Formats: sequence, structure tokens, C-alpha cells
Amino acid sequence: MRMSEGVEWAAHCCLLLSWIGEDGPVPATRLAAGFDLPAPYLNKQLQALVRAGIATSTPGPRGGFRLARPLEQITMMDIVTAIEGPEPAFQCTEIRQRGMFAGSPESNFRAPCAISTAMRKGEMAWRRTLAKQTLADVNAAATGGLPDLPEQIRAWYART
Amino acid sequence: MRMSEGVEWAAHCCLLLSWIGEDGPVPATRLAAGFDLPAPYLNKQLQALVRAGIATSTPGPRGGFRLARPLEQITMMDIVTAIEGPEPAFQCTEIRQRGMFAGSPESNFRAPCAISTAMRKGEMAWRRTLAKQTLADVNAAATGGLPDLPEQIRAWYART
Repeated sequence: MRMSEGVEWAAHCCLLLSWIGEDGPVPATRLAAGFDLPAPYLNKQLQALVRAGIATSTPGPRGGFRLARPLEQITMMDIVTAIEGPEPAFQCTEIRQRGMFAGSPESNFRAPCAISTAMRKGEMAWRRTLAKQTLADVNAAATGGLPDLPEQIRAWYART
Repeated sequence: MRMSEGVEWAAHCCLLLSWIGEDGPVPATRLAAGFDLPAPYLNKQLQALVRAGIATSTPGPRGGFRLARPLEQITMMDIVTAIEGPEPAFQCTEIRQRGMFAGSPESNFRAPCAISTAMRKGEMAWRRTLAKQTLADVNAAATGGLPDLPEQIRAWYART
């Protein structure tokens, strides 16, 4: 089970947008250059952020992407859901109702499958933990040891 | 991000083995018939359980699979790791060191990436929750409302 690398890209781009996006939208090509990523594929991840209401996009030659809301209001869970979708990683296919159990009375299956319940508990813990961490928390951790990081990046953006 | 359906299959097979495997090894074909699953592909999942030390396999015409240890000593995390491997779902590719940061002093990257750290916290919560739930717990939940389930299944196994 592997999460799309788009999650890493999208989270980094959100931080980057919070640092360089104050004066106007940032083109996907600039964000891609910032991390040496393929622009067309990064653009797909950015469009997913737009669909999720995390970013906005402006068309046209001076267009690009901006954050739709402050970092405090974007959680790591929001990013994961935007890129990976809302479906659970473990999807119960109810094999307990097949084979030897085919034709069993429906009442046997009224309670949810215990295996599915156990797996769901794990995913809920994962989701809750990601939902508690905002990009503002992540930003504070990232810039804690490197307080001039945003300034360095604004300088890079102005220069290139 | 989707977990292999092999996780569901393997967990159900472990419960089934605990119910019908006391008198001898159970062939993969019987386990497959129990859930109407493709035997060759189920066999791969069972071999993964063997490699993980969760099951043992006996070759030969009367061979098959048995649990290597009691349900109390098998956690949901053991099953997931056996089938999916131990790698984290989120794999940080350190894009923070690329593009605009290529050539930055190494000291900038001594602290782990804050995004990777946040994602790891989520996965640790997921792993801890799965590791706390044994198959004995799952078995108790599965048979709680259906106390004669194991007996029904032993009857099916003896009959077919």
C-alpha cells in the first residue's frame, strides 16, 4: 500500500504558496521548478487542491494558484483527502457472505464484519491524527530551525 | 490509496484456520472454497502468512496450512504487515532538497522534513491501533452474536 507522491507534492506546494503567493497567483510551472517536479503532473495535483477548496486557480498568462484559506484552516487530512480521495484504504468486500456462507440467513450478517471493524478503527486513528495537524503546525515545525526560510524562498521567487 | 484485498482474505483465513485447523492442515483449495476465492491467488496470501511466521504450511497430498500461534498472539498489524510489507504508505522523497534548494547547505536538512513527520504521526497512530487488536479480539466480536458460528463451520468442513 503506497500513498501517491502527489500528497508530498501538494503539501509542499501549499507551504510554498503561503510564502510566495501573497502578491498574486503562482503558475504551476514556477511551483514545479521550485521542487524540480514535472509541471503537467504537478498541475493535476494542484487542480485536485482546487476541487477540494484548498487552493484557487486563476486562468490566463498572469494566472496560477493561490491558497483558498489560511494554513491554520488546512489539515494534513484535507491534503490527503484532496489527492487520494475519501475512500478508506481497507475496503471490505464481505467475503464472509460467500462460499460456505452463501445462502445463510441475512440476520447472520446484520452486525458489521469484525475484521472490517478492526481495520476501520485503525484508519480512524490515522485520520484523526492527520486531522489534528494543520499546515500551520507543519509550517511552524519547518521554519522553527530555519526562521529565514520563507525569506530565502521569496528571494528565490523574485530572482527567477 | 487502496489496501490489497489479500488483507481481508488473510484475516478471514486465520479465523477459519482457528476453527477448522485443529485436526490437521487445511489445503488452500478448501480455504478458497470457504470464501469462493481464486485458489492460486489466495495461496500467495497464505504463503505470505507463512513467511511472516503467522501460519505454517505442510507439503504433500494431505498438506495445507495451520496457524503457527494462537489468535491471542496475532494482531491485525501482523496480518497487514505480512500482506502489504513493512514499508510506510507515505514515502518521503525529500523534494524539499530539490529545485530551488538544490545546493543548499546540508545543515538545512538535518531536521526531518516537517511534512514527513506529520504523515508519520498519522501512520504510527494507525499501526498502534492495529497492533492493539488481536485476532482473538476479532474472533470474540465475530462470534459474540453468533456463538454457534465455529460449530457451523466445522460441520461445513466435515461435510464437504
